[in-house]
Amino acid sequence: MFEKPTLHTVLSPKLLDIYDVKNSVVVIIDVFRATSTIATALYNGAARIIPVAEVKTCIEIGKRVDGITAGERDGKVIEGLEHGNSPAEYPRSFIEGKTLVLTTTNGTKLLHMALNNGADEIITGSFPNISAVCDHLIKSKKNVILGCSAWKDRVNIEDALFAGAVINQIQSAFTIHCDSSLMASELYTAQQNKMFEFIRKTTHWHRLAAYGLEKDLEYCVSPDLANILPIYRNGDLIVG
Amino acid sequence: MFEKPTLHTVLSPKLLDIYDVKNSVVVIIDVFRATSTIATALYNGAARIIPVAEVKTCIEIGKRVDGITAGERDGKVIEGLEHGNSPAEYPRSFIEGKTLVLTTTNGTKLLHMALNNGADEIITGSFPNISAVCDHLIKSKKNVILGCSAWKDRVNIEDALFAGAVINQIQSAFTIHCDSSLMASELYTAQQNKMFEFIRKTTHWHRLAAYGLEKDLEYCVSPDLANILPIYRNGDLIVG
Repeated sequence: MFEKPTLHTVLSPKLLDIYDVKNSVVVIIDVFRATSTIATALYNGAARIIPVAEVKTCIEIGKRVDGITAGERDGKVIEGLEHGNSPAEYPRSFIEGKTLVLTTTNGTKLLHMALNNGADEIITGSFPNISAVCDHLIKSKKNVILGCSAWKDRVNIEDALFAGAVINQIQSAFTIHCDSSLMASELYTAQQNKMFEFIRKTTHWHRLAAYGLEKDLEYCVSPDLANILPIYRNGDLIVG
Repeated sequence: MFEKPTLHTVLSPKLLDIYDVKNSVVVIIDVFRATSTIATALYNGAARIIPVAEVKTCIEIGKRVDGITAGERDGKVIEGLEHGNSPAEYPRSFIEGKTLVLTTTNGTKLLHMALNNGADEIITGSFPNISAVCDHLIKSKKNVILGCSAWKDRVNIEDALFAGAVINQIQSAFTIHCDSSLMASELYTAQQNKMFEFIRKTTHWHRLAAYGLEKDLEYCVSPDLANILPIYRNGDLIVG
């Protein structure tokens, strides 16, 4: 009998070690805003995105590859980097053909954890590219870990909502014995028709809305506006 | 202006270190079944319950204090201990006036973590004693951490549901900037009228129902059947 692959949801980077990433496709999820920005920049023609953990490394690599350095810490642009972590900063007219070197508070950190733990494959997911992610996971027929980047290891709603949205689309193709997945799926089912209203209750909303980023946040929960698959290969995120 | 105390929910023991337990009442939650059993045994007149982390210590202390040794690992009674982790094993006729020495897979472990991290106060919560817990938290006017014991560090639904039930009762008395709390509260709101049905979807249900413990599990999600407050004082859980 054909056995379906498994699917698990990891609600915080601190919980990643409990799961078997070596035999899994790991989906890095950082809805506000790293993985939404990654999908958008690649959709708009960026040649590649180099995700890096540290600001210093970001600047060094930016110089070496003649790339655009970008990133945020605590939701704000970092001194020494050229750009921020907003999808709106990367229209085709600006980013096409260029290399983006990106460092963020949570998303790039989780990506490097998955890499160091030996993930079989790493892709990034966000509402703007949800269909591309779901199609890939179904076709791959591999075990899946939906990895929420969270906020400084604290579980966050928006990443869990995205995990739930993915689960609701692909669950029939997987064996899911995972309460985190059930919780994410139930949460998304209950909130899917009032997302703009619901995300205004999250801690991240309160953090970023203070910087006037409401439009960014609404973009980041809108499906398929940048529907490509970012896949990690030899240090770069490229279109898969 | 009077500032309300804070409330946070910790969905897995692995996330406890992120929070400031030193200035908080920590509520240990292990719905299936440690904290339900603790409430029941104390409600039925147990003199005290000594929670211990290791089986060996359980046996040693049991001998020293002439207590009843009890516990489980992976949902089953442990060789060398006299009793299991089922609330049904502790009616008044058996437990009144006695000392219970208890070790479990997840609940007693989290309690000792909170203790080692210097929690201001430790109590235990479960549906059978939910009103006593809520009354105490409101009266205390201290910061609250709702600590889910989870299953071997994996987030579980039943502990999150209990956290959500508590939040829904006491939220007006607290400042809550915590997505885990929002998630737990939303989950409980959506499922509160179909709890018996919903818990049959959890991983824990599948684990324990295999041992014929369905009645136990339904008891463990029924409110106020053993409505006392277990509080930790100098090594013992006693009625507060």
